[in-house]
Amino acid sequence: MILFVDMDEVIADTYGAHVEIYNNDFNDQLTLEMCAGSEVWQNVPVVRQASVRNHASVRGFFRNLKPIAHSQSVLKELSEKHDVFIASAAMQFPNSLEEKSDWLDEHFPFIPWKNRILCGHKHILRGDLLIDDRSYNLERFDGRTFLFTSPHNVNTQGFERVDSWIQVADKLL
Amino acid sequence: MILFVDMDEVIADTYGAHVEIYNNDFNDQLTLEMCAGSEVWQNVPVVRQASVRNHASVRGFFRNLKPIAHSQSVLKELSEKHDVFIASAAMQFPNSLEEKSDWLDEHFPFIPWKNRILCGHKHILRGDLLIDDRSYNLERFDGRTFLFTSPHNVNTQGFERVDSWIQVADKLL
Repeated sequence: MILFVDMDEVIADTYGAHVEIYNNDFNDQLTLEMCAGSEVWQNVPVVRQASVRNHASVRGFFRNLKPIAHSQSVLKELSEKHDVFIASAAMQFPNSLEEKSDWLDEHFPFIPWKNRILCGHKHILRGDLLIDDRSYNLERFDGRTFLFTSPHNVNTQGFERVDSWIQVADKLL
Repeated sequence: MILFVDMDEVIADTYGAHVEIYNNDFNDQLTLEMCAGSEVWQNVPVVRQASVRNHASVRGFFRNLKPIAHSQSVLKELSEKHDVFIASAAMQFPNSLEEKSDWLDEHFPFIPWKNRILCGHKHILRGDLLIDDRSYNLERFDGRTFLFTSPHNVNTQGFERVDSWIQVADKLL
């Protein structure tokens, strides 16, 4: 089986980083729960939104993200049985490209460079399964899809959903 | 039609750069013709091969490549009629990722970031046509393929071949 796995909000905790950086910058107490159904920047005062929307353009943002719980151990096991590819829409942030490569080297060294894809659209991928947190990526993919739960998609309907990597393991291992 | 176009030796002149850098470094007179059927490093004395093989790891190498003749005008016209994606096996050289993005911004600004793919394998691409100089990429692609002539592949048989972007235009426009 050829399996494509998104990075941000699937194996890399971008929401956690946005909230942590925002709280540090503005001495506030935003939580992930407060972001349910929306983007992080939509949950801060208007005058601070530009700051949050700029996080991803700051050098080091993508390099310092924490892995999502259990993503490493479950993907390690999956990669021994299947053809696992990481597929990230990274081209939007050119500064993120090398950081994402370095981040994968550190946290997912068992995924070789040939199995890493940085792209924009995901409907140009040919394979069996796509795990992604963005419904617009899943809609156009020709294969099975899992919507990986993230604060922004908790209200999204109509997709096979996984809330954690433990659930992915239950379905695939 | 969804069309995938490789970068190195299809729209970016890597062989020309290897030969130019080598000649500058060692005050030699290597030519592209002398590299027919082989890689550039295979055509220099053994003690200089490591230097040539290291070119692609040097910062700036990919940023400073010259576009292949007529690639810009023909791809501009193709992109107005078809869904053109750039697909480069760039993940091998993490230092090249941002350089390739910047290079595309300069020379192919009409190809938006969503239509740029940096990957390892190309058999995971879903589309109608792949233009590439490496036969191993074409072999596993499920669709029509053009082998774009480069010094290293002049002896390769068994593929629909294009020698220039003028020939691509003749076939597709």
